[in-house]
Amino acid sequence: MSDQPPGPTVPGRLSAVHQPHAWFAACESRELTAAPLERTIQGRPVVLFRAGAASGAGGAAVAFEDRCPHRNVPLSLGRVLPSGRLQCCYHGWEFAPDGRCVAIPGLGGDAVERRARDAAVHAVVEQDGLVWVWATPGDEPPSTGPQAAPFRFAWLDDRRYGVIRRQFTVRGTLHATAENALDVPHTAFLHGGLFRTSTKRHEIEVVVRRGVDRVEAEYIGEPRPTGLAPRLLAPHGGVVTHVDRFVLPSIVQVEYRLGDDTHLVSSAALTPVDDLTTRLFAIVALRTPLPHWLVRLVAEPVMKRIFAQDARILARQTETIERFGGEQFASTPIDVLGQQIWRLLRHASGATGAAGDAPAGEREVRLTMKV
Amino acid sequence: MSDQPPGPTVPGRLSAVHQPHAWFAACESRELTAAPLERTIQGRPVVLFRAGAASGAGGAAVAFEDRCPHRNVPLSLGRVLPSGRLQCCYHGWEFAPDGRCVAIPGLGGDAVERRARDAAVHAVVEQDGLVWVWATPGDEPPSTGPQAAPFRFAWLDDRRYGVIRRQFTVRGTLHATAENALDVPHTAFLHGGLFRTSTKRHEIEVVVRRGVDRVEAEYIGEPRPTGLAPRLLAPHGGVVTHVDRFVLPSIVQVEYRLGDDTHLVSSAALTPVDDLTTRLFAIVALRTPLPHWLVRLVAEPVMKRIFAQDARILARQTETIERFGGEQFASTPIDVLGQQIWRLLRHASGATGAAGDAPAGEREVRLTMKV
Amino acid sequence: MSDQPPGPTVPGRLSAVHQPHAWFAACESRELTAAPLERTIQGRPVVLFRAGAASGAGGAAVAFEDRCPHRNVPLSLGRVLPSGRLQCCYHGWEFAPDGRCVAIPGLGGDAVERRARDAAVHAVVEQDGLVWVWATPGDEPPSTGPQAAPFRFAWLDDRRYGVIRRQFTVRGTLHATAENALDVPHTAFLHGGLFRTSTKRHEIEVVVRRGVDRVEAEYIGEPRPTGLAPRLLAPHGGVVTHVDRFVLPSIVQVEYRLGDDTHLVSSAALTPVDDLTTRLFAIVALRTPLPHWLVRLVAEPVMKRIFAQDARILARQTETIERFGGEQFASTPIDVLGQQIWRLLRHASGATGAAGDAPAGEREVRLTMKV
Repeated sequence: MSDQPPGPTVPGRLSAVHQPHAWFAACESRELTAAPLERTIQGRPVVLFRAGAASGAGGAAVAFEDRCPHRNVPLSLGRVLPSGRLQCCYHGWEFAPDGRCVAIPGLGGDAVERRARDAAVHAVVEQDGLVWVWATPGDEPPSTGPQAAPFRFAWLDDRRYGVIRRQFTVRGTLHATAENALDVPHTAFLHGGLFRTSTKRHEIEVVVRRGVDRVEAEYIGEPRPTGLAPRLLAPHGGVVTHVDRFVLPSIVQVEYRLGDDTHLVSSAALTPVDDLTTRLFAIVALRTPLPHWLVRLVAEPVMKRIFAQDARILARQTETIERFGGEQFASTPIDVLGQQIWRLLRHASGATGAAGDAPAGEREVRLTMKV
Repeated sequence: MSDQPPGPTVPGRLSAVHQPHAWFAACESRELTAAPLERTIQGRPVVLFRAGAASGAGGAAVAFEDRCPHRNVPLSLGRVLPSGRLQCCYHGWEFAPDGRCVAIPGLGGDAVERRARDAAVHAVVEQDGLVWVWATPGDEPPSTGPQAAPFRFAWLDDRRYGVIRRQFTVRGTLHATAENALDVPHTAFLHGGLFRTSTKRHEIEVVVRRGVDRVEAEYIGEPRPTGLAPRLLAPHGGVVTHVDRFVLPSIVQVEYRLGDDTHLVSSAALTPVDDLTTRLFAIVALRTPLPHWLVRLVAEPVMKRIFAQDARILARQTETIERFGGEQFASTPIDVLGQQIWRLLRHASGATGAAGDAPAGEREVRLTMKV
Repeated sequence: MSDQPPGPTVPGRLSAVHQPHAWFAACESRELTAAPLERTIQGRPVVLFRAGAASGAGGAAVAFEDRCPHRNVPLSLGRVLPSGRLQCCYHGWEFAPDGRCVAIPGLGGDAVERRARDAAVHAVVEQDGLVWVWATPGDEPPSTGPQAAPFRFAWLDDRRYGVIRRQFTVRGTLHATAENALDVPHTAFLHGGLFRTSTKRHEIEVVVRRGVDRVEAEYIGEPRPTGLAPRLLAPHGGVVTHVDRFVLPSIVQVEYRLGDDTHLVSSAALTPVDDLTTRLFAIVALRTPLPHWLVRLVAEPVMKRIFAQDARILARQTETIERFGGEQFASTPIDVLGQQIWRLLRHASGATGAAGDAPAGEREVRLTMKV
């Protein structure tokens, strides 16, 4: 991307990418029952349900393209039978959890065996309390390599950590949302007072490390943030370690260590609902000397406020870029991760010419920033 | 259409056809007065009024393109003068019932005689309590042949028949709406319990007859439906005769005879409001041993309920197909009429290559179905 | 345009023009403070503010393209600092009144000097109580010639004149709105009774004078209008002088003299918000024997009523033309100014082939009209 704006993929639209070979979070595990659940991922309607849950047991998570192959009515209008089959509400066609059409009411001797009548199946993995769906129906995820399984969120099972989960939806491309989530300069300014103050500035060093499927920025020499939240979360102060991280296809992670006592890992799986809408499945794992209940009491309103500010900016940014027919960004060296995220996304989307731009291995860049 | 989906005529849109040479119902006779009435037929704004009705008499039905030739303000904003002229509300131009512009306020000696100043006229026929409008303004319907006059609804004047009229509007193409109205398998499933039950199945024979402007399916060996409505309408049971019929440009008809006593002809004239919206002018003629008032009492809530279920499905089907950029239907032999209706509609719309698909004459197909 | 309809510039859209080299009114002077004000002119987002007003003084009016060059968030979400700089709300970039980016929070030693980081500036002139903005950002208005300065409204400083200012927004192209504002025949009909009556008609002479940047129509032999408003405004009657005038880029003016006592100049600066929306900054200057307060009392409700009628017609006209995919106008000789306005607008927009249509100098046409 260098200093040039990313070129819009569609005239009059923002630069959006599709990653056909990727896992995206569709919902939280606790949201999924035998009742069909409608979701949209990269513009594709998906129906999720638990096969067998209707009979009382938990049931495995299943995802189909949300369109009956017969007359294209959404399958999510149907119901899950005790047999674990999803039944379309229009003509009653029944689909087994593997997508096969196994019953067509009214059809006489004719065998129901033609693939054209089967539902298109999305691969599903349930992991870390999230139901992950493979982007392309009818496509098998690889059995090895970085794309084989969804991203793992550490610390979830460590009892010393309190975990807060939230979902948010924003009007913004995956790229704009990911950059916003990991962008340091705007936090000092837009969220100033909440966890940074904009009056005293320290010159710090930033090390940017580019990997094959990720980029991270480590901030060295950063003072303990002086805002309200940091003061409560790490009352004893100490050395600050701060790393921001983006991992393909769409994971953002902000990690803070404040002294020995406090460790914060604020992550989110970003799901592109459509080109201009992104859903965040946020998972914050936090270890502090304070009791968990107090941390939640402090952290939740802060999270909510930060999110509301960011969501408003992203929506207006999106609207403005649409009105102007595409981005025209001017970047500076302290826009540390935005351009790298764009490069990774373009590469993952299989954009022509983007392969050469992709980082071949680890690489470090150093710069200074005032925070 | 065979097993292939009909190709969308516009990318990202559903398969819709326009029939330029056809009669469509615009409104019921009882709705039309001297007050201009706005309607849309195949996307074209039409204004209807009764010329002369302002003077007290009934007045003949007139239809113009709903656009003043002067500055393109809708003529339906105007009013009908006692002389039977429609006057535009903007500059007061007056149009005689034959469309001629006969007065322009302010215009001095200049004769008002140029055709560019005339309103575009739609041919109109009033028949069977409906006001039928010819699809293309400025075009004369043929004086002979199947297109010469609108479809006639039988039994309306037979005093043994009770008649119920209703209008409904659905989100669906003409094709999807007509198929839905005549589709047997979904009634057993979607409307199960209302006039079919889905538990006991009988194997029956279906004879499909294709004519030049119509297709019909006769169901042979069908038991008396076991739902609530049939039991009330034909308490004595008897042999069932059941024919479903589509007639160009857009008539659907379901005819039942149950023994000697009961005869039900449920018809509808379908008007394509635009590519994705269809208005149904339903006319149900019914002869039973029961008194008419009781039939209405029973039949009306059933009609309403069936319509609400179908309208919901059609709207979601339409939305889903739009999101996927076009239909992808998988048909089976028991999708008896949908493909034939599509073939007739394509031919009537003058689609290239469709002529060869058109049925040259009568033809019968036999299949079995479980109902 | 002759009798032919203006051709739509975009299929399915109304004929709209863009004038890239023109002054348009963005707001009234009294509306502009140090708080950023969002406006749209010819589809372009513009942010206006008074630099220095935050420190207490009045401050000069400034207009930028409403998009931060950094990440394209609207600058109108930001705030004006006491220094007169506009600060973006997202990362805190600061822009001097001349558009230069003069501060980037967090950016270390790096000089902030590259033009890509500057805001795009619209030239601004404050005159006659209006803030005028040059259509194209980064473009300098000429220092001489008819485009050098915005149109001047006479009589504003003459104490014998009462002045009423109002803003209205209509759904209509600039062309349709300007024609409507200056069209005589519709006033007799649509607004009949308010300031004309449609019963008694007089044959009058109309002289049309075409200039390089304007067209005007003088009505000779017009009787004193017999409506309510004229009777109150000019109780003594007298000779009527009536001139309607359009001046590029978008000024409409209706001037009446009734005897020696009464002089009405009803003007409006029309701002094309987008292709189909026009904002009118109306300025009515009026000298009558009646006290100003009484004139306001009478004139304001009349203005409001006329505007509401016109706005309704324009909106329905716009909608109808959109549905038909473009205008199809049939004009008569008494459509005095509409075609001339279209010719001027097309020429000013730099439309190919339009130059030859432009009036080379003064020219008079005479016709008669009944009013």
